[in-house]
Amino acid sequence: MEELTGEQVAQLHREHVMQPWHKQGGDVTAISKADGIYFWDYAGKRYADMSSLLVCSNLGHELPEIVDAIKAQADRMCFMSPAYATEPKSRLAEKLVEVAGADFYQRVFFTNGGADANENAIKMARMVTGRAKILSCYRSYHGATYAASNASGDWRRFAAETGGSLPGFVHFMNANMYENGYTRGVDDAEVTADYLQRLEEQLQYEGPTSVAAIILESVVGANGVILPPKGYLEGIRALCDKYGILMICDEVMSGFARTGKMFAWQNFDIQPDMFSFAKGVTCGYVPLGGVVVSKAISDYFCDNVLQCGLTYSGHTLACAAGVATMDYYAEHDVCAHVLEMEAILKPYLESMQAKHRCVGEARCIGLFAALTIVKNKETRELMSPYHDAHSVMPTIMGKLMEKGFATFGRESNINICPPLTITEEQLREELPKLDEVLTWVDENLCN
Amino acid sequence: MEELTGEQVAQLHREHVMQPWHKQGGDVTAISKADGIYFWDYAGKRYADMSSLLVCSNLGHELPEIVDAIKAQADRMCFMSPAYATEPKSRLAEKLVEVAGADFYQRVFFTNGGADANENAIKMARMVTGRAKILSCYRSYHGATYAASNASGDWRRFAAETGGSLPGFVHFMNANMYENGYTRGVDDAEVTADYLQRLEEQLQYEGPTSVAAIILESVVGANGVILPPKGYLEGIRALCDKYGILMICDEVMSGFARTGKMFAWQNFDIQPDMFSFAKGVTCGYVPLGGVVVSKAISDYFCDNVLQCGLTYSGHTLACAAGVATMDYYAEHDVCAHVLEMEAILKPYLESMQAKHRCVGEARCIGLFAALTIVKNKETRELMSPYHDAHSVMPTIMGKLMEKGFATFGRESNINICPPLTITEEQLREELPKLDEVLTWVDENLCN
Ligand SMILES: Cc1ncc(COP(=O)(O)O)c(C=O)c1O
Ligand SMILES: Cc1ncc(COP(=O)(O)O)c(C=O)c1O
Repeated sequence: MEELTGEQVAQLHREHVMQPWHKQGGDVTAISKADGIYFWDYAGKRYADMSSLLVCSNLGHELPEIVDAIKAQADRMCFMSPAYATEPKSRLAEKLVEVAGADFYQRVFFTNGGADANENAIKMARMVTGRAKILSCYRSYHGATYAASNASGDWRRFAAETGGSLPGFVHFMNANMYENGYTRGVDDAEVTADYLQRLEEQLQYEGPTSVAAIILESVVGANGVILPPKGYLEGIRALCDKYGILMICDEVMSGFARTGKMFAWQNFDIQPDMFSFAKGVTCGYVPLGGVVVSKAISDYFCDNVLQCGLTYSGHTLACAAGVATMDYYAEHDVCAHVLEMEAILKPYLESMQAKHRCVGEARCIGLFAALTIVKNKETRELMSPYHDAHSVMPTIMGKLMEKGFATFGRESNINICPPLTITEEQLREELPKLDEVLTWVDENLCN
Repeated sequence: MEELTGEQVAQLHREHVMQPWHKQGGDVTAISKADGIYFWDYAGKRYADMSSLLVCSNLGHELPEIVDAIKAQADRMCFMSPAYATEPKSRLAEKLVEVAGADFYQRVFFTNGGADANENAIKMARMVTGRAKILSCYRSYHGATYAASNASGDWRRFAAETGGSLPGFVHFMNANMYENGYTRGVDDAEVTADYLQRLEEQLQYEGPTSVAAIILESVVGANGVILPPKGYLEGIRALCDKYGILMICDEVMSGFARTGKMFAWQNFDIQPDMFSFAKGVTCGYVPLGGVVVSKAISDYFCDNVLQCGLTYSGHTLACAAGVATMDYYAEHDVCAHVLEMEAILKPYLESMQAKHRCVGEARCIGLFAALTIVKNKETRELMSPYHDAHSVMPTIMGKLMEKGFATFGRESNINICPPLTITEEQLREELPKLDEVLTWVDENLCN
């Protein structure tokens, strides 16, 4: 088959592909190859993937260990249906339970991605508790299928709320310390107490015995790497225990060594009853997601039929990629490397906050980081008001892209979430590009 | 990595995998390999895959052309995010639009599977029309995420109806000629007129201007290969046109040459405004699904932001598998082969209906076939009442499986949907096993 040119690839895309969250038919860059932390367009321009695409290529692109596992499994058996046991599915389920903690966790339900992982977690929570309500955070994203979208907090959920939100979905406000006027490391105890008290009050008014689960991202990702104030997740766990509510952590973005622990909830003194995952489980090489559930939930579904299913649950090729990915995290102690790189990235981003008028706050845990860009540092006025159609943030992202620093960010945030395999040298090569663009923002967009 | 034994694979599955639509922890068969129309357990027993797993392995297992395409793409670029154009995604979108008909269709939104394909079709229909209601059939299955499940008709949707069904989902009764007491080829005109008239009446009571879409399987699959009576789909299209309602065909199971046409709706004199697909687009080798939309719908989303998205939309490796799959269908004229095999399968199944007391009706279009198993042929009493927990049908499936004839069926149906690449010789080798089991049913389970 003859290869297409970059222009042909882009042209067919503009004509025939529907691109998420966009008007169709606009400009698009065609990508020809990817390797390690880089990818290239057809003109040969190199981009450093400073967001691991959508925070999924945790081990970078074309890692030989994962590619080889995919090829070996492709030669053997690409797919066998969920009713049968296969070696990759059995192995991956065991590995996930082990890393989560086999004292408390028991089973894995496999899906294709993050949204359907959350859909199934919600369904299971309702079946197990016999309760209907699902509480979730305004500052959150859980996917774009109907239930995952209704659980989400940001405005991407509106299109799934035809005629109002789905029955049983209730939102509460989670703290965004910087935007709420607080200082991290100073005000944590106050913020935690305040937000937990408000949540408990809201629970009373919802009727705590009608609440099946509280679902939340262990570390809020797409809404700007919002770190929970100290003690907050432990407080949520305590509220769940007090009222017999299940706690579901969404680890779709924060999981798989991103924060320096295999799962982000392991940074805190909690064990969620279930947690959803996707992305980093295969680094996106083959679509895969799922939910890890506690022994108690597993036991319930030994006595009751699990009313969940999808054709590709436990997909053979995807699970083989997952096994290779999990092995790589363990054998190369990726978590340790992440902490070493954090020791470079975090102070660098803090220095950006000190240096630039436009950097309101730098947040970093592991290689999960974001800068909040402001017009005015004193007033904390964000560069772009919430849900602003005329945001200048795409211009800033474009400037970074021009320099070969590819990333994304929502609202007034710039995400810095490179592949976890990035080296010190690579980090030190890319970060000055960020510095330069921030200087441009200081000079052109700040008050 | 040392290989596990079959017993180890099964044991890990029983302990750690959550199996769809089952109580957990029960017996499971471990499968070691698959090739063509066959797969094998660890004891070396061979099974003919007479249902193409969940009617997805349309080209059988380990087809070299698809396997090679996966391996080649794996070496090049497993995944690039939806914001960028890639050759496999561009090519596959173009091919799908071409096969659907480029005069009417324009664009493809890619998802991971069938459920999220339907979720997105529903969301798009609501955005385009500004209307909320979605009408669908009781005899249907559209997936198990919340909106897809609420659109579904069979009892698998109940678990997604906590506190009642989701707002806007309305069901109507589609004809199942045999179970409703009619005879195919005799009563079609009467049944079509009757069911369309009832649907139009129901539309009046729902308020036709509040209905965004009617979604239905072109040929109902999981609920028993229920062929629409002649003229029925054309009548639905006319009702949609009359009231400005979008028609969505679900081609997840019926698509990709299964019926002898690339898409099942092409057997009828209609063009749906959108149709969802999955399964046969890659034969399940890599998870992929999506929605093909008309030029009119595409145009709407050139002017309005598409409020849909998922991380793996247009997944690179999956689309490469899709391109190879589509090429195979075209280059080997799989549709023509399907019609040749239909000429063997259909009369054979009709002879089973004539011969066996337990076969109420045989339905077959292309290699999409099912038998309705009855206790009593005169009264048409089904072998198992609807949604019966004590159905004997699993026993019948077990007998087939013992003979190496692997298939599934819901309610009182046995599906016969082998890979489309099956040869006459293979068909003639497998079908007598069905005959034998039906004789056993005649003798042991009929009144
Ligand atoms: C925290 C979180 N949950 C769920 C999702 C949805 O995952 P997917 O895009 O695979 O549906 C995302 C996607 O970015 C996410 O960040
Ligand atoms: C007609 C139809 N639509 C949708 C689905 C759901 O697809 P998936 O299992 O990939 O979610 C199925 C699954 O069997 C189906 O048969």
